[in-house]
Amino acid sequence: MTAKFPDIAPRLPAAEGHDWPEFRPGWVWLTGAGPGDPGLLTLNALHGLREADVVVHDALVDPRILSWARPGARLIHSGKRGGKASPKQRDITLHLVELARAGNRVLRLKGGDPFVFGRGGEEALGLVEAGIPFRVVPGISSGVGGLAHAGIPVTHRDVNQSVTFVTGHDKRGLAPVTVDWEAVAKASPVVVIYMGMKHLGEIAAAMIAAGRAGSEPVAIVTDASLPTQRVLETSLATAAADAEAAGMQPPALIVVGRNVLLRQALDWAGQMAGEPPRSLDPLGTRAQDDAAEG
Amino acid sequence: MTAKFPDIAPRLPAAEGHDWPEFRPGWVWLTGAGPGDPGLLTLNALHGLREADVVVHDALVDPRILSWARPGARLIHSGKRGGKASPKQRDITLHLVELARAGNRVLRLKGGDPFVFGRGGEEALGLVEAGIPFRVVPGISSGVGGLAHAGIPVTHRDVNQSVTFVTGHDKRGLAPVTVDWEAVAKASPVVVIYMGMKHLGEIAAAMIAAGRAGSEPVAIVTDASLPTQRVLETSLATAAADAEAAGMQPPALIVVGRNVLLRQALDWAGQMAGEPPRSLDPLGTRAQDDAAEG
Repeated sequence: MTAKFPDIAPRLPAAEGHDWPEFRPGWVWLTGAGPGDPGLLTLNALHGLREADVVVHDALVDPRILSWARPGARLIHSGKRGGKASPKQRDITLHLVELARAGNRVLRLKGGDPFVFGRGGEEALGLVEAGIPFRVVPGISSGVGGLAHAGIPVTHRDVNQSVTFVTGHDKRGLAPVTVDWEAVAKASPVVVIYMGMKHLGEIAAAMIAAGRAGSEPVAIVTDASLPTQRVLETSLATAAADAEAAGMQPPALIVVGRNVLLRQALDWAGQMAGEPPRSLDPLGTRAQDDAAEG
Repeated sequence: MTAKFPDIAPRLPAAEGHDWPEFRPGWVWLTGAGPGDPGLLTLNALHGLREADVVVHDALVDPRILSWARPGARLIHSGKRGGKASPKQRDITLHLVELARAGNRVLRLKGGDPFVFGRGGEEALGLVEAGIPFRVVPGISSGVGGLAHAGIPVTHRDVNQSVTFVTGHDKRGLAPVTVDWEAVAKASPVVVIYMGMKHLGEIAAAMIAAGRAGSEPVAIVTDASLPTQRVLETSLATAAADAEAAGMQPPALIVVGRNVLLRQALDWAGQMAGEPPRSLDPLGTRAQDDAAEG
């Protein structure tokens, strides 16, 4: 038995002393919608959706989230659609400025978090330049929350004290030449790559050339946190070929590192669907921990 | 005029077709509470709070969030309090197992995200080993969402295609010897350090030794996203001394990189409080962008 939203709404807290942030006409909220699952939206984002006159959203925002907009609010799709070219970033920013100047409460709704490879900083700079008041409403970034839904912790004390997030796209849509892949490979036992599917082969080769083992575990996740979520477990050397063979399509998250092994125990979504854990000690560290803490 | 929670609750969406995740007696939800502001809680986390019989929470979870627990739910503080030593991680995990075996819906509520330096993976492994069904509910990590509230984007297209998150603590509370600070310094133009205040001087020296400029911008943020938020803008060479002089106390977030300059334009919280932006072009890239896109 799961609870429908209308059943829980009346039981939402009458939070003493908590004021929701003000959203005045002429203001813009740069808001993250999270990785997909509507339950990963924040309360502030929901509040913004209920207040906004106009919602300017990316292609990746789930329709169920958009259905929560205030009745009568205008929904504007800003991303790529069908075969049409994506509007230029500057055009999107100018559009936000126009809508705000016309006296609308404008919710700019982006997948994930607006400040994690989301170009939120560019839009915010455009708003400041135009004198438009704005707020940033952070969202769950797919590289953290999406991977959690796949049963993969981006940090784990026995694996890593650092994690690097990197984009596989640069300004021109190429594998970024400005990324020092050798340093990235050495810096963090765990590397999360956003938008890396197109150049996965090159990226993996660069990381192996920098000293990462070809056998190192890799997971590729599509539709993270949604019922259609797919997770491919592979290795650095075979990732590109395996992804192609499995028909994994972008957008996808790619994570490189031993924490991928933890999925053998921590695939909670699979376990809730009846699959037993494949291992209770996927890192082989249990005996070691007992000695250290005992 | 800000809206009180009771005013928005009746207008919450009757989301057609959206089922909230089931939370059965005997189950544990490992849940992130976000950086502080109760509005940054996710809908799933709020749902869990309203369903749970027991809430086992860290010291950093805001009391206003805890006030949203179901009336009659038991609140258990699991973190450090006053002079008492922090319970061992294994003891916390065993406690979660006991509470679940006794037939409770157990919400384990942690500041930030459970899988970003939150030891959620360890707790989850303990639950799997004990056969306790669990779910992970991601939260906004303070290194992303807390910095957004300080007006600092962790990524910005003109600054970085990669960002590294690193903890200043290791298993024994020392500056982690397992982190290759030289590689971290080289890998990412932007480095976010969690729990790094105690060893800030050493960490900054290591990064400078690895080639980062002493003049590189640094921000130190405490109480991120709360009304008591403080932000100190400094530089790598002077960060430790400036933090001490300013009386900045842990826990704090530290961010190293040119994106800190963006705060001169993007400090939206300050601007909402009436402070004008200090710069409209903090990176000096506006003319350059116009040429590239025009």
